Amino acid sequence: MIQLALIGIGTGNPDHLTLAAVNTLAQADVVLLPRKGKAKSDLLDLRRLICERWLSAKANIVEFDLPTRAAQGDYQQNVRQWHDAIAHCWQQLLATHCPQGGRAALLIWGDPSLYDSSLRITERLEAAGLPINVTVVPGITSLQVLTAAHRIPLNAIGAPVHITTGRQLREQGWPDGIDRVAVMLDSGGAFTTLPNPEHYDIWWGAYLGMPEQSLMAGRLDRISEPLLQHRQHLRDTQGWIMDIYLLARRG
Amino acid sequence: MIQLALIGIGTGNPDHLTLAAVNTLAQADVVLLPRKGKAKSDLLDLRRLICERWLSAKANIVEFDLPTRAAQGDYQQNVRQWHDAIAHCWQQLLATHCPQGGRAALLIWGDPSLYDSSLRITERLEAAGLPINVTVVPGITSLQVLTAAHRIPLNAIGAPVHITTGRQLREQGWPDGIDRVAVMLDSGGAFTTLPNPEHYDIWWGAYLGMPEQSLMAGRLDRISEPLLQHRQHLRDTQGWIMDIYLLARRG
Repeated sequence: MIQLALIGIGTGNPDHLTLAAVNTLAQADVVLLPRKGKAKSDLLDLRRLICERWLSAKANIVEFDLPTRAAQGDYQQNVRQWHDAIAHCWQQLLATHCPQGGRAALLIWGDPSLYDSSLRITERLEAAGLPINVTVVPGITSLQVLTAAHRIPLNAIGAPVHITTGRQLREQGWPDGIDRVAVMLDSGGAFTTLPNPEHYDIWWGAYLGMPEQSLMAGRLDRISEPLLQHRQHLRDTQGWIMDIYLLARRG
Repeated sequence: MIQLALIGIGTGNPDHLTLAAVNTLAQADVVLLPRKGKAKSDLLDLRRLICERWLSAKANIVEFDLPTRAAQGDYQQNVRQWHDAIAHCWQQLLATHCPQGGRAALLIWGDPSLYDSSLRITERLEAAGLPINVTVVPGITSLQVLTAAHRIPLNAIGAPVHITTGRQLREQGWPDGIDRVAVMLDSGGAFTTLPNPEHYDIWWGAYLGMPEQSLMAGRLDRISEPLLQHRQHLRDTQGWIMDIYLLARRG
């Protein structure tokens, strides 16, 4: 039997790790570290740092090239095929490095529950009959780091919050009957598609939790343009960007 | 100047603490611990345990009786008055125990961003001119513990998630255009108000992260009644209950 732990590691600050994550890492025999291309090597470096700090001396670190998702064609189908390819990859790695079972771990950016594919991939491994027991160690999400950095609550008193993607905000617009919307996975500026930007406040953050963390906040009509320029500048400088934001209807 | 840290401590498992939370606690001069009445003394015990484990020997633990919220009348107004009363209480405690400034900390169940009042209370302290610098240390929320325990993602692929309260679900019904709704702060069985329960799955958890953790999942029409009975039994046995759930539209 393979014990596979999906460990949420937070968003770039090694001190986001929970004690439960540290304990699970200390017991791991194998850690699988995905390589996601040069642009995101900062993310791989953080995982290496965490492994160096918390793995036991006898643990085995296995780096692998993460398959890439097709950019053209149907989004949902591309995502499914991509998950199939990653599942195939994990299955081979686990068969190679845990032939007699053992404790394997994956370090998941943020938390495995939120816009992350690892649980859908382990479902495929279970469906394929791999002798595997999956556990999840919760981690700090970028939403928690965003609200902490801006020192704001996610919700208004007793009110709902909507978490969505840049794609959804562009295609579906502002959801009915909601005053607060958190937007993740935005390839850039989905908030510019909102009519009447003067009716919204925005709290934005990039590289949350990392030394490069950058924050902006204000009335959407006033900071929309400077924010987009700032984002482009950061992206050009760093070579990549990960950012999220909270929007609130004013008044 | 008083440095006041709002430290998210997760949901009942002392290993939910992050390394950042541990580091912040180790540097605290004063920790304010609210007493919330006998029924919730388990929650106070956890905070005492965390203090015992991580505070320095010279730190001062100040327990205080948390004001209670009026149950009758306008909900929003009751909440505002309650926050005023807590702010008054914190202000007096900080003036008494940090007369020359220093590092104070509050241990916040879950994360300070989600259905928690501490940030609204520190706003009042800042508005009252208290020389205070507030920082937030993110913590694991019960939503992350729920999804980890059930080993499910919060969102469907690329799809939005709605986080709401039992009261909202009862009064507003199922939100339009959404397939997944996480419900918190439900005083019991708000899901019974949904028409066509056969169209929903539910993943439920109580005392998440604690030794008493209890989980149920299934098609809503099939488990709604047994779940309510189970919840009542737990509540009678423990003297209190904290539970949340995720609902997903089927198909």
